[in-house]
Amino acid sequence: MERARESGSAEAYRRAGVDLDRGAEVVRRVAKLVRGTHGPEVLRGIGAFAGAIRLPEGLDDPVLFASADGVGTKLLLAQAHGRLEVAGWDLVAMNVNDLAAEGARPLFFLDYVAMGRLDPDAIERLVAGMVDALREVGAVLLGGETAELPGMLPEGSLELAGFAVGVASRASLARPTPVAGDLLVGLASSGFHANGYSLLRALLARDPNLFTPDELLMPTRLYVRQAAAAFAAGAKAAAHITGGGFPENLARVFPSTLAAEVVLGAWEVPEVFRRAQAAANLEDRETYTVWNQGIGFVFVVPPERLGDVRQALEALGERPVVLGRLVERDRGGEEAAVRFRYGGELPV
Amino acid sequence: MERARESGSAEAYRRAGVDLDRGAEVVRRVAKLVRGTHGPEVLRGIGAFAGAIRLPEGLDDPVLFASADGVGTKLLLAQAHGRLEVAGWDLVAMNVNDLAAEGARPLFFLDYVAMGRLDPDAIERLVAGMVDALREVGAVLLGGETAELPGMLPEGSLELAGFAVGVASRASLARPTPVAGDLLVGLASSGFHANGYSLLRALLARDPNLFTPDELLMPTRLYVRQAAAAFAAGAKAAAHITGGGFPENLARVFPSTLAAEVVLGAWEVPEVFRRAQAAANLEDRETYTVWNQGIGFVFVVPPERLGDVRQALEALGERPVVLGRLVERDRGGEEAAVRFRYGGELPV
Repeated sequence: MERARESGSAEAYRRAGVDLDRGAEVVRRVAKLVRGTHGPEVLRGIGAFAGAIRLPEGLDDPVLFASADGVGTKLLLAQAHGRLEVAGWDLVAMNVNDLAAEGARPLFFLDYVAMGRLDPDAIERLVAGMVDALREVGAVLLGGETAELPGMLPEGSLELAGFAVGVASRASLARPTPVAGDLLVGLASSGFHANGYSLLRALLARDPNLFTPDELLMPTRLYVRQAAAAFAAGAKAAAHITGGGFPENLARVFPSTLAAEVVLGAWEVPEVFRRAQAAANLEDRETYTVWNQGIGFVFVVPPERLGDVRQALEALGERPVVLGRLVERDRGGEEAAVRFRYGGELPV
Repeated sequence: MERARESGSAEAYRRAGVDLDRGAEVVRRVAKLVRGTHGPEVLRGIGAFAGAIRLPEGLDDPVLFASADGVGTKLLLAQAHGRLEVAGWDLVAMNVNDLAAEGARPLFFLDYVAMGRLDPDAIERLVAGMVDALREVGAVLLGGETAELPGMLPEGSLELAGFAVGVASRASLARPTPVAGDLLVGLASSGFHANGYSLLRALLARDPNLFTPDELLMPTRLYVRQAAAAFAAGAKAAAHITGGGFPENLARVFPSTLAAEVVLGAWEVPEVFRRAQAAANLEDRETYTVWNQGIGFVFVVPPERLGDVRQALEALGERPVVLGRLVERDRGGEEAAVRFRYGGELPV
C-alpha cells in the first residue's frame, strides 16, 4: 500500500517540512493492523503499487459495486473528544452500508488520510477503527494512502476519505421492481450515524452541553448481514438513510411513478433526535431530511414476504418496524416522492 | 453516485452553512461528464447507493487490483493557476499508473472532493480532467463523493482523493522473478508529475519565478498502454516512480537479495530538474529520492527480451532507455537496495 511511499531522502524532505521518521512510524504501527484483515485471498498487500485480491469463488457473472464516502464534520467531534477510532469505524460503515443497500457483499476497503503533520497516534486510532468494522463485515483493508501535506493542511487538521468495493452475482440482482402496496421496513440506527453534523455542530456552538459525547459519537451501525438476510428472504430493495435523510434516500429505490408514504408515529423517535429538533427549531418533516430519526436502513418488502423478512431480521437480533408503504404517485409525478403523514393503519 | 446526496431540507442545511442549490448545480454539471464515460458494462451509475459494473468477459480467475492516492500539494499550484483540470487528470494518472505497474488493466475510478464551500466551477474542472484521463485509458468514472464541509475546511480550500480498481487474469500475473543481470528500462516523464511538490513550493516561496506555470503544471503521463505492451513483450516487473523517487519505488519490484544499479548519465536529466536541484542545493543522489528526474516508469526486462520490449514500446511512440541493471546485493543485504553510479556499459 502507498503508505510505504513516505520515504526518500530524509534531509531533503525535512527541509520541505515532511518528516520521514513520522512516516515510517505510521507504517510500522498500521502494518500489523492491516495484515490482520488479510486472508489467502489477498495476493498483494503492503509494499505493492496496488493491493490485489482474488474474487470469491463460485460467483456467476460477477458484478462489482463501488462506493466513495467520508464522515463529514463528525470527524471534528471525534478529534475533539479523542475518539478517532469512531471516525475510522464510521468511514467503513458509511461505505459498506451503501454497498449493502445495493445487495452487494463488501470485499475490500481503502482509505485516504492526509494531515498537515502526520500524527502516528491519530492514524493508528483511525485504522484500528476501520479494521474493527471491516472484521465485522468480513472485508479486507486492501490499501490506503497516508499523506503529509505541509502548507496545505494546518498541523492538527485531518482529511479522511474511504472507498469500498463489493460484489454480487448478476442473477442475484434480478429482483422484482417495487410496486404500490409494498411495505417499508426499517431497522434502528444507533444515533445520528455520520450525517447532519454541520447542523449539530451549529447547535453545539450555542449550547455545548446539548448532547453528551457518547450521544454524538456513537459508531454508525453496520447493516451488511441484515441486508443479505433480508434480500434472501424477499426484500426488493433497500435504502441507507444518510445525507438528505428519508426523502433523498428512499426516493432512490422505487420508480418515479410511485411515492413513499412514511407514517410518523410508526416508531418512537429517540429522545436525542427530539432534543436536536427542538434546539434547531425545525418542523417535524424537516428533521427527516437532516437526521435519520432513529431508522438507519429501510427495506422495500412485498406484503406477502413480510413474515419471511421479519423472521430473517429477528434471527439477527433486529426488531424491524413497518414504517410506511409505497403508493401511486399523482398524475405528472409532481407530488413529492416521499411524504409523511401522522397515523394510519400498518401491519405491526 | 453519492453526489446526489447533497439534498434534503434546504432551509435546515442553509442554517448549518450547507447550500443545497450549489450541491444541485454540481450534480447537474458533472452528471453529463460522468455518464460520458459509461458504456453498457455500467449497470448502476448516478443515483444509486453504489456504482455497479460488470467484469470484462473472458477473464480467467480474475484478480482485482486497487489503489488510493492524492495529488499532494500540486493541488495548491493547480488551484493558484486556475488549472484544476490538471489536478483531476493527475489524480487519475497517479492511481492508474500504480495499477499498470502491477500489470492490471484499469476498470473504474472514484473520486472524493470536499470543499468548505462548494464551487461548482472548480468541481466541474476537476471532473473534466479526470474524465479526459479516464477516456485515455478506457476506464469508467463509476462514482464519487462531493462534500460541503463548512467549519471544517476554509471556504476556498479543497480536499481531493482518488481510488482506482483494475483487473488481471491470475495466469497473467505468473511472471518470472527478477534476477541479477536483468535490465532497467525507463520511459520519459512529462516533468515533476505529482511528487516532490512540498519541496518545489518551498523553492517557489524563495523565488516565485524559478519555474514557469507550465513547468509546474504539466499533466502526469499515463503509462497504462505502455505497461500492457511491455508485459506482453516479456517485462518481468514495473515501477511507477512516485513519492520516494528511484530508491523507494524501484526497491519494490525485486527480491531483497538483489540491488538496482542506476547509471547516472544513461539518460539526459531535463533542465527543469537540474534547475530545481541547484535551487534546493541537493546532492545528485538526493534528487533521485525526491523527483523522477525525467523518468516516470521503469520496467525490469531480461536481456534476451530487451529487443521485444523495446520494439513494443517504440510502436507506441516511446523512446525507452536502458538506465541500469539488477545486481547481487552484498552479504546480509545491508547495502542499499538502489545505488547510483556514474557511467558504465549498458546496452544502448
